[in-house]
Amino acid sequence: MSNAIAPKSYIASAAALASGADTPRAFLERCLAAIDAHEKDVLAFVTLDVDAARAAADAATKRWRDGHRLSAIDGMPIGVKDVIETVDMPTGMGSPLFTGVRSGRDAASVKALRQAGAIILGKTVTTEFAASFPGPTRNPHDLSRTPGGSSSGSAAGVASGFFSAGLGTQVVGSIVRPSSFCGVVGFKPSIGGINRGGSHDFMSQSAQGALGASLADVWQVLIEIVSRAGGDPGWPGLAGPMSLPAARAPTALAVLETPGWAKASDALKAAFAARLSGLSRAGIKLLTRANTPAIEAVEKSLESALALTRDINGWESIWPLNIYRDRDASKLSAPMRERLAESEKMTPDDYRRALAARAAMRVTYARLADLADACVTLSATGPAPVGLASTGDPAFAVPGSILGVPALSLPLLSENGLPVGLQLMGFEQRDADLFAVAGAVEAIPGD
Amino acid sequence: MSNAIAPKSYIASAAALASGADTPRAFLERCLAAIDAHEKDVLAFVTLDVDAARAAADAATKRWRDGHRLSAIDGMPIGVKDVIETVDMPTGMGSPLFTGVRSGRDAASVKALRQAGAIILGKTVTTEFAASFPGPTRNPHDLSRTPGGSSSGSAAGVASGFFSAGLGTQVVGSIVRPSSFCGVVGFKPSIGGINRGGSHDFMSQSAQGALGASLADVWQVLIEIVSRAGGDPGWPGLAGPMSLPAARAPTALAVLETPGWAKASDALKAAFAARLSGLSRAGIKLLTRANTPAIEAVEKSLESALALTRDINGWESIWPLNIYRDRDASKLSAPMRERLAESEKMTPDDYRRALAARAAMRVTYARLADLADACVTLSATGPAPVGLASTGDPAFAVPGSILGVPALSLPLLSENGLPVGLQLMGFEQRDADLFAVAGAVEAIPGD
Repeated sequence: MSNAIAPKSYIASAAALASGADTPRAFLERCLAAIDAHEKDVLAFVTLDVDAARAAADAATKRWRDGHRLSAIDGMPIGVKDVIETVDMPTGMGSPLFTGVRSGRDAASVKALRQAGAIILGKTVTTEFAASFPGPTRNPHDLSRTPGGSSSGSAAGVASGFFSAGLGTQVVGSIVRPSSFCGVVGFKPSIGGINRGGSHDFMSQSAQGALGASLADVWQVLIEIVSRAGGDPGWPGLAGPMSLPAARAPTALAVLETPGWAKASDALKAAFAARLSGLSRAGIKLLTRANTPAIEAVEKSLESALALTRDINGWESIWPLNIYRDRDASKLSAPMRERLAESEKMTPDDYRRALAARAAMRVTYARLADLADACVTLSATGPAPVGLASTGDPAFAVPGSILGVPALSLPLLSENGLPVGLQLMGFEQRDADLFAVAGAVEAIPGD
Repeated sequence: MSNAIAPKSYIASAAALASGADTPRAFLERCLAAIDAHEKDVLAFVTLDVDAARAAADAATKRWRDGHRLSAIDGMPIGVKDVIETVDMPTGMGSPLFTGVRSGRDAASVKALRQAGAIILGKTVTTEFAASFPGPTRNPHDLSRTPGGSSSGSAAGVASGFFSAGLGTQVVGSIVRPSSFCGVVGFKPSIGGINRGGSHDFMSQSAQGALGASLADVWQVLIEIVSRAGGDPGWPGLAGPMSLPAARAPTALAVLETPGWAKASDALKAAFAARLSGLSRAGIKLLTRANTPAIEAVEKSLESALALTRDINGWESIWPLNIYRDRDASKLSAPMRERLAESEKMTPDDYRRALAARAAMRVTYARLADLADACVTLSATGPAPVGLASTGDPAFAVPGSILGVPALSLPLLSENGLPVGLQLMGFEQRDADLFAVAGAVEAIPGD
């Protein structure tokens, strides 16, 4: 099956759309054909509204033809993670407590996408409340494997060519990990980058982002959102040009061996090393723990990243999980109930200590900005594991989450023929710089 | 009528409740008697659930009798501003778009109050979406006058003795102003102080707080919330002892003449001066613009506070106001529609510039922390104005909002027999210190 599927870049079709050689309706029909062929196996969607999508594509087709397109993503088919509200479809939260529940409103990002003319094709499978308990989605590269989570359906849908981009959210590993496992571009912005209004995604280190067929698709979707809906209240929001920042080769990259490193296979480390070798040969200076004490300091500080993330997210999730438990405890997964009970043992002072530890971690990391243009590491400890009961190890994704920095997963590596992402991490509120670096990095082959 | 009404402190009844001389049920019945007598005139409630309140009061009465009270506010009757969600009552948002709408959940603060045994007596009138367009509530001190807004019903209800404390929210002047007009204690915490989950109150400088019969009632309600629900995600939350911080006379207070000063009457300025004179006689050093350049710098920087607040709040409110407009524009007030249209002309860069200006204002203000224990000023330009079409001038409340600092209105002044608040403003995340200062200030009579 892996040969039958491929992401579909809408931005790569821009010239054909402008000339009339392609149309939004024709583009959508190619997506629908992929859905017809593969959705029965992949199970990326919770809700799919083909009729509404066709009507929207026809309207977009007319606008392109008349020279009045609303934006560069006018007519782009998009999947929306099912924790993000939509006025015309239920928002099921990956929980039986919300199956079929309609909020009656569009989230800020969804409203902005509609203003830009994008087609909200459907809602995509999420784990329970975007946490760990998985949904039914399967990895399109190997149906016996997890697509990763929590943005499972958005990742699998992009990989399968069902839509050009999917909205996702990340507070632990929920964009970087499924992007890695499904072989698509995934981007978690800096803290506050995208307005999270109307998304079940309220934690202090969570961010809304996108998974897409290419760097250009991801950037375009997010900058179109932010130009209309802004970032989170109080934050500057994703800033940069109205189309993909031009590629710019970095002077130096910091190679990070974070806590996931010990779990990666020798084969994957070799693939990573080959890619690094290519970067080095292209004249990019590679800093490592061996030659740069500041990198070793970051790696050491990140040893507690996962435990700290769990404490912080746990405290911040007591509400609303406690009211969901009141409503019907049997409809929360057992792991969710256990986690809630653990979190309720925390005190406000425990939480304050965790915030202070996180702040210290961020200070340590920020020092790297003087030495390198970005950091490079893996996106996951290996390819997607077999089985659907777990969404896989988030070890490599946690640092970007806890640090609040932009994190990009690029589908540049593989192990045993299955995709693994190369991850670039940038510096807070310098997301456009990270895209410029990524454009250069993806163009440089490995040795 | 003003002689017939008075706030009812639950915390002042603690000894009687502990001894059994008073009971939560008896306390509630006194509140219900006040409601029977005055609610027809005051119109503080949107929803009032007497049966549920009596059942909750009986349960609390049993717990106090058995020596198993859940907290110091077990059995305290509380009003909840109708932008804060309640599982058992609709949350009407002061908007015909939400009349009778039930969210099906308790807000984080409401859930915490229930865990502490407090009685959610009813939902209190708010302006439209906690902004400017007023509700029907009248000022219990003079029914021809506004109670102030947007926490109108919570203020009027506390003043009328309907409940001991009411939850409120403030992003411009929505706690300090109605507290001043209604002659009750009102407190807007530092930014992030109280978990706003489940409250229509998402702007970057908005805060949830409380209005109450006394400093002790307000502190107790909020610290009971935070000990269970925390502050906003990512913030340390209100910190301090589990009962009212002990009064502590300040060494120095900074007297602030903010943009409202020019609008205050000579009579009110004289009343303020008399109070200051008392503080000075008690040995508290008073710093003013005349003797302290740092104060003049703050006053100058605050000249743009209201305009900047409107820009920031306007941008941050585009969503969800735009989706409410989509739903039924005729159900948004004309001022709200106009404001939305203005805000939609802003760009992300306009907003970023406004955030930068706010940040600079905060830096200027924070310098005062080296010179004074707190700032003292008026809470409003005068008593509540006649008429219900406007909730009054927010000029004195805006600084606390835009600066993100704790702000307390104490019912210590009057003009023409009508209440006006004395406002104390503290420093960010030092809310308990402000209560300690307030305890001393309220005990020192004016000259």
